[in-house]
Amino acid sequence: MAILNRENFNGINHRFKVQFFNSLIGYKNVCLIGTKNADKRTNLAIFNSLVHIGSNPPLLGLIFRPRSVERHTYENILNTHVYTINLILEKDIAAAHQTSARYSRDQSEFEASGLVPTYIEGFNAPLVASSPISFGLTLKENIPISSNGTNLVIGEVLWIKYHEEIISSDGFADLTQAGVVGCIGLDAYTKGTILQRFEYAKPDKETRHIQ
Amino acid sequence: MAILNRENFNGINHRFKVQFFNSLIGYKNVCLIGTKNADKRTNLAIFNSLVHIGSNPPLLGLIFRPRSVERHTYENILNTHVYTINLILEKDIAAAHQTSARYSRDQSEFEASGLVPTYIEGFNAPLVASSPISFGLTLKENIPISSNGTNLVIGEVLWIKYHEEIISSDGFADLTQAGVVGCIGLDAYTKGTILQRFEYAKPDKETRHIQ
Repeated sequence: MAILNRENFNGINHRFKVQFFNSLIGYKNVCLIGTKNADKRTNLAIFNSLVHIGSNPPLLGLIFRPRSVERHTYENILNTHVYTINLILEKDIAAAHQTSARYSRDQSEFEASGLVPTYIEGFNAPLVASSPISFGLTLKENIPISSNGTNLVIGEVLWIKYHEEIISSDGFADLTQAGVVGCIGLDAYTKGTILQRFEYAKPDKETRHIQ
Repeated sequence: MAILNRENFNGINHRFKVQFFNSLIGYKNVCLIGTKNADKRTNLAIFNSLVHIGSNPPLLGLIFRPRSVERHTYENILNTHVYTINLILEKDIAAAHQTSARYSRDQSEFEASGLVPTYIEGFNAPLVASSPISFGLTLKENIPISSNGTNLVIGEVLWIKYHEEIISSDGFADLTQAGVVGCIGLDAYTKGTILQRFEYAKPDKETRHIQ
């Protein structure tokens, strides 16, 4: 085992450090955020910072980095107050990754990547048509993180589009059946296999498998 | 495909809703947080809300829910200002899940779960000895989320303990080699397989595989 402390870490090449630290923190969520700008032009961008904030009401958070390619998405959310979160199918990983390129403001990542937009009636942001699970959100809170100038953007879920057949009787969604991918770091897309589900843990009970 | 809107969502049974919404949002990170209280008693708790905040300086965020089992961890971080984040091996998932039980303040989840604590000299929080990747952090920022009374706790990474052999020449950490697990929802532990890594995307270039 190696131990790297802050002094060693600071001395490392910037690109190596970004790859290293982004991948070493464990498996991450990966999703596509769909928005429209004030001129009704669509935008699609890949994120790996989705975090569950609460279930009642259903709230999701995303971290936005300053002055990055994600800036169009950030501006669109602040302007229109709505956005979609779309999980990614195994067959779509190359197209999804391509949305991370720094396209100009007047270029839609839908056209550039070949991913097809679709709409839910009355909701002003595009969904990814091939996504097996999509959420429609409205901006709830935009929280500045003073440590490094990023922002935590919190949205409230207004609707959820999903395949009913992946939901168990207890509400659990088996993402492995849906063909959804996860990621490691900034560029590795992963497929998951469920090792085990466990019952709700109690201090006086042995850990028990579900099924 | 089914569409569930807010009205339908509100009508659902609470436990079903929590399972449904936690699992449907995609693959998540899962890790164990090691702390000590003011009486030097150790605490270990499982979290699935770790999020990358920045690489330079290295910052990680965690969501803390109010009045939950995670409260001991939260209080310990606020009191001692230090904590460890430990990724989980496949063989440790049952023990890791057991740390989510509501143990009393004077009971250590290390003893209850059988996971073994270890220490880095001069650092006042316990690591999980069997963890293939651990981080030592100092509290940097505690941000209240007014939407639902949760908190985003941001820590700065002081040291990283890891297996050197999983790091590629570009800095990428192959977690599949390290035997690290991810999760779906609140109780399903997953193993990952890398489908593909892609080069840094550019608007005028085709998406290209790494290797």
